[in-house]
Amino acid sequence: MPYRVCYDQLVGRATKHVGACQRPITPSFAREDRMYPERIRRALAGIVGEEWYLESPEDRMAYSYDATPLHQVLPDGVVFPASTEEVQAILELASREGLKVVPRGSGTNLAAGTVPVEGGLVLVLTRMNRVLEIDTDNLTARVQPGVITAPFQAQVEALGLFYPPDPGSNMVSTLGGNVAMCAGGLRGLKYGVTRDYVLGLEAVLPSGEVIRTGGKAMKDVAGYDLTRLLVGSEGTLAVITEILLKLVPRPEAKRTLLALFPHLEDAARAVSETIAARIVPATLEFLDQGTARVVEEYAHAGLPTDVEAVLLIEQDGAPSAVDADIERIAELCRRAGASEVRVAATQEEASALLTARRSALAALARLRPTTILEDASVPRSRLAEMVQAIQEAARRHTVRICTFGHAGDGNLHPTCLTDARDTDEIARVEEAFAEIFAKALELGGTITGEHGVGAAKAGYLEARVGPGALALMKRLKEAFDPQGILNPGKIFAEGPRRRMTVSR
Amino acid sequence: MPYRVCYDQLVGRATKHVGACQRPITPSFAREDRMYPERIRRALAGIVGEEWYLESPEDRMAYSYDATPLHQVLPDGVVFPASTEEVQAILELASREGLKVVPRGSGTNLAAGTVPVEGGLVLVLTRMNRVLEIDTDNLTARVQPGVITAPFQAQVEALGLFYPPDPGSNMVSTLGGNVAMCAGGLRGLKYGVTRDYVLGLEAVLPSGEVIRTGGKAMKDVAGYDLTRLLVGSEGTLAVITEILLKLVPRPEAKRTLLALFPHLEDAARAVSETIAARIVPATLEFLDQGTARVVEEYAHAGLPTDVEAVLLIEQDGAPSAVDADIERIAELCRRAGASEVRVAATQEEASALLTARRSALAALARLRPTTILEDASVPRSRLAEMVQAIQEAARRHTVRICTFGHAGDGNLHPTCLTDARDTDEIARVEEAFAEIFAKALELGGTITGEHGVGAAKAGYLEARVGPGALALMKRLKEAFDPQGILNPGKIFAEGPRRRMTVSR
Repeated sequence: MPYRVCYDQLVGRATKHVGACQRPITPSFAREDRMYPERIRRALAGIVGEEWYLESPEDRMAYSYDATPLHQVLPDGVVFPASTEEVQAILELASREGLKVVPRGSGTNLAAGTVPVEGGLVLVLTRMNRVLEIDTDNLTARVQPGVITAPFQAQVEALGLFYPPDPGSNMVSTLGGNVAMCAGGLRGLKYGVTRDYVLGLEAVLPSGEVIRTGGKAMKDVAGYDLTRLLVGSEGTLAVITEILLKLVPRPEAKRTLLALFPHLEDAARAVSETIAARIVPATLEFLDQGTARVVEEYAHAGLPTDVEAVLLIEQDGAPSAVDADIERIAELCRRAGASEVRVAATQEEASALLTARRSALAALARLRPTTILEDASVPRSRLAEMVQAIQEAARRHTVRICTFGHAGDGNLHPTCLTDARDTDEIARVEEAFAEIFAKALELGGTITGEHGVGAAKAGYLEARVGPGALALMKRLKEAFDPQGILNPGKIFAEGPRRRMTVSR
Repeated sequence: MPYRVCYDQLVGRATKHVGACQRPITPSFAREDRMYPERIRRALAGIVGEEWYLESPEDRMAYSYDATPLHQVLPDGVVFPASTEEVQAILELASREGLKVVPRGSGTNLAAGTVPVEGGLVLVLTRMNRVLEIDTDNLTARVQPGVITAPFQAQVEALGLFYPPDPGSNMVSTLGGNVAMCAGGLRGLKYGVTRDYVLGLEAVLPSGEVIRTGGKAMKDVAGYDLTRLLVGSEGTLAVITEILLKLVPRPEAKRTLLALFPHLEDAARAVSETIAARIVPATLEFLDQGTARVVEEYAHAGLPTDVEAVLLIEQDGAPSAVDADIERIAELCRRAGASEVRVAATQEEASALLTARRSALAALARLRPTTILEDASVPRSRLAEMVQAIQEAARRHTVRICTFGHAGDGNLHPTCLTDARDTDEIARVEEAFAEIFAKALELGGTITGEHGVGAAKAGYLEARVGPGALALMKRLKEAFDPQGILNPGKIFAEGPRRRMTVSR
């Protein structure tokens, strides 16, 4: 029986185990318990081998959810292809038989992007997990979609190279999932996101046809940019079976500082002043007071609990340039009103400073049974306004929302500590998030900076992109997937809808 | 009467003049001389005003070509909208009446991307030429499509910011044209291309509907990436009416070196060794022996004419890091076999070194009546093989092709010096380029690195992307432009076709 990765997003830990997932499925989530007819089961098992097609209730339960709270639906079967050819054969069968197919990797998605909301076949790509080539002449890597992000990063760093995108789940997430969702992370400000590192793809269309896009030539304008269209398409257009990634030289040096601000606006000004000084830090992370307090209770990192904002800033590059930047940033933070600025002298000290940011989600998640981590984003200059609007929305609806995130690129993570069993509270949470998304849009931002639309935010997409662009996106979906078999119920809502669907 | 920019690609000069273009139209290029019926002419003039709709033979002649040799067709009319609303009204009319519309800026394109190959209405966006905003907090610029690239770059550099994409025509080209073609340039290796700097777009669909994509939030994964799909779509999907660009801090320092290599392979090894040393120079330009000889005859830059390759390398960044990189690169070039390495001590010396690269096209173009500048690209590691293959193809077909280009990103410019009036020679040129494109594909490269497909290379696209991806691209075109009115005859060939179409 194959390994399955069960990602417990509440504590950010991954546990690998054989057999059923420990997370219980509650009756309210269960849908009518059907499986495929014998003909289809035989065909699927024939393609991948008996042991790689699963359909027992506990196996299907293990693939009924991802890291998104409140979304869970049983699939009809689970299949683990080992090659592009097997993916092709599965999709040919699915097209012929009209089966819905939900591609996924480790399922760390936070927008219910890999929940089989209409049932169907979950296509798990974790067996296709080989690093096929690291080309040190052309600074590229060719990988299969099931390669786990962090070990891959370690592998290229050992060669003096660097793959910058660093989603929070990178210990568990797959590169295929990163590409499908256009994963972001802490280094977005300076280094960009997954999109900026995908040079080419091999993908299987719903028809079973294989296309190859891009390549190692760094410049290529031959036809429409299918590569970037597939990046972030959330498994709705094609199944990605091979990825060509761009690598860059590993920065020689890295330094870290932590700055504490009694006033939120001063922290925002420190961010603005840093950019105004033409410095682009590698990471520029923010924690609000609520997050800082919870982190301090949990991690005892030595944070004062009376500051409104904590900034954690890293710079990398040539050693002398890094030193100069860190000194200037420290000075700018002090001038903007930081009550304390700690510059790490050693790597150990830097790691200690990073604890505050790293433990934010784990610290928050232990407070209440359900943790909803969102990713409304705004232009960098509107950061303070957005944080205040989040705090006001939480107060107005008497829910608890702490905010941390990537201040450098305006990508915030308002994180709601709640309880899925309390339907009244969940309704208030829903209202608060509706206001938060509306405010993000009002400030020139977006409903999702890096998590994706999935099923969770499909109802908000039209407000973000407008009816014309939404209709166009639907026509693009039809151009790839005329039968609508690939990851149905994602990106496009049937009507205006709430963020959460607790059952179906 | 409006200004029109007539770009003479032969000498790289731009001349602005009122009235007819000086370049003669030969009878073989003329198509049946028709104009629109009175009803349509009145409607167009009603939208933009009498003075901004042109239809005299000399006016139409001036918009019958772009910078691509051997491609010229008269349009039926030329219209100069001043606003998004006027573009909308024109496209609504065009949709209603089934008019073909060819959007263009300055027409510096080298793939016949803006030649009205099926006649129709040329939609010139040069009146929409305002820089609407430079946002120094968020490091963005909002511009209209008709803004000229180089003055815009100077404007942002005066603020300590930097817009890196630098196509060779940037003194003349528009930002809208840069976006439509995904223009590249000398800085692609380190800084990427136009695609990497477009954060959002306003565009008018062929129906007249306006869509807005992206925004100032640096991370945004709300729906399919329409922004990057429109970048490089060559005016076939929508008319771009506003562009939101990403800016970066201007590098503090820049240094330049020139290295001369008796042997081509040694120059290629110097490039590889530089990358292997984890140095990514800002520019890494290459001239082959043929180009170097012609440049020396023309510019007297002090180049020896017996070297097989010249590398011109620039690095930018923090001063100390730049000094260290330039020293290491100089040493790597010497060790790889450079007979001479000249490091510029001053900005004046750097400018003198740059003369060799800057004057390459002008020097080559004065030798024969027709200059065909191509842009086959390969992975960086295959550079020497590709240059040799180009030289062999030229010898085999007894045509003269000199090669220069962007060695850092494998983007070469094999430049053929020929004579459009000599049909025998043009046939041999065609054969040579067919072999060159085939070789680029064999080496894992592409038929066009930065010029686009246009009409000139439409016949080669299937060989590059495969039949499946080509069919998919056609379906995407239909999703945007079901009537096929926007820039017809571009990207998609009716059948396998030669690079050149000298008349129709």
